[in-house]
Amino acid sequence: MAQNIYDDESFFDAYAGLPRSAVGLDAAPEWPALRAMVGDVSGTRVVDLGCGYGWFCRWAAAAGASRVLGIDLSERMLARATAMTDDDRITYERHDLDDLDLAPSSVDAAYSSLTLHYVADVTRLFSTVSRALVAGGRFVFSVEHPVFTSPRRAAFASVDDRPVWPLDGYFDEGRRVTDWLGPGVVKHHRTLTSYLGGLLATGFVLRSVVEWQPSHDDLTAHPDWAMERERPSFLLVSAERPTAQTPV
Amino acid sequence: MAQNIYDDESFFDAYAGLPRSAVGLDAAPEWPALRAMVGDVSGTRVVDLGCGYGWFCRWAAAAGASRVLGIDLSERMLARATAMTDDDRITYERHDLDDLDLAPSSVDAAYSSLTLHYVADVTRLFSTVSRALVAGGRFVFSVEHPVFTSPRRAAFASVDDRPVWPLDGYFDEGRRVTDWLGPGVVKHHRTLTSYLGGLLATGFVLRSVVEWQPSHDDLTAHPDWAMERERPSFLLVSAERPTAQTPV
Repeated sequence: MAQNIYDDESFFDAYAGLPRSAVGLDAAPEWPALRAMVGDVSGTRVVDLGCGYGWFCRWAAAAGASRVLGIDLSERMLARATAMTDDDRITYERHDLDDLDLAPSSVDAAYSSLTLHYVADVTRLFSTVSRALVAGGRFVFSVEHPVFTSPRRAAFASVDDRPVWPLDGYFDEGRRVTDWLGPGVVKHHRTLTSYLGGLLATGFVLRSVVEWQPSHDDLTAHPDWAMERERPSFLLVSAERPTAQTPV
Repeated sequence: MAQNIYDDESFFDAYAGLPRSAVGLDAAPEWPALRAMVGDVSGTRVVDLGCGYGWFCRWAAAAGASRVLGIDLSERMLARATAMTDDDRITYERHDLDDLDLAPSSVDAAYSSLTLHYVADVTRLFSTVSRALVAGGRFVFSVEHPVFTSPRRAAFASVDDRPVWPLDGYFDEGRRVTDWLGPGVVKHHRTLTSYLGGLLATGFVLRSVVEWQPSHDDLTAHPDWAMERERPSFLLVSAERPTAQTPV
């Protein structure tokens, strides 16, 4: 079961202050890479796992999706998403991704942004998404990189007067309690092996695996992001449910 | 061009003292996982990129491969491999993997153990291997994990009296000069994105991506390997050249 810290009032208020909350997708530097993985959604049925304020759901509808389902655990998030949305094609539902069910072959594309590291049983979710996708459908997601979620103390440290990311505990998968926008945020660390192996074991074909890094333009606009080049922070994946003629 | 440090006499002598040099594959803890990825080689043509003493070549021949080509840059390595080999099916050739050519569709399986981090242009090599493989053929390799090759000082450090792997420079791909069995060993760091993206861009289908970690039995036999659970050291990959009916 996932922690529902987004319904904590002080956490929710702090989250509201993030550029990606207030401004939306264009304030998320990894969005151009994800958008390229998502591709053309016109005429498709899309599900967003961890939809938050619904920025992606509204983008998908504006890009021509025929039906968009946004799912989140947080009532506050869903209330905000609903208040910001005026489109009959978009529906929001409250579910814990750790026990989500979706109808077989009910969607053409699944999307999830920076949510799966809150999910305890990602293998179960991969299986649910695989069944929900039509053959040839894609699952595109971003997640905090395993290198980012692994450390017992997830903050840059100084060694020999240089900043380093103090990696440890990599193969000790499971809960990590960190302070981010508030104390006691529970994430679930898993290795790259578990993410990619979980997808492959569920029958997905991997189409793209990208570790986000700031672009030259990003660094010009945000010089402090230079630290983001020292260690990977976000992992972006595009996986496809194979068609009948794809050998798996 | 790859550095040829294995022809340095003192380096070569130090390498000879490693268990995996003296004893062979069974002294390499990642071998069982690689062997499972390689699968049945009976009746197949196999190439080993960075064959060293030829342990894998002899294993493949003993497992029924019809022809085995071992390639290495080091004359000393090849001399040792030749001296240890008495099998007409096995041939050794000296090449720099950075300008290797292989005949199209000339092999059924390609293998490489802990070598690709010495190669400067891995994308070129992936392309060469892809063309050399028959459709449905596999490329199985291990490589030092990007997290392992990245740090400017690749050794555990102490932060708050606990050992951590001091990750930095992750997106700064290129040469890393380290001391291993001797001074001045030149490796080429690249990200996971570059390894997996390079394979996908060359048309490979990813079959397996595994970060090696010591097993329970490994830790019982070698308690000091517990540190290997703090950060990934080896990345193991199985990639397949798709058949005509595989959509790519």
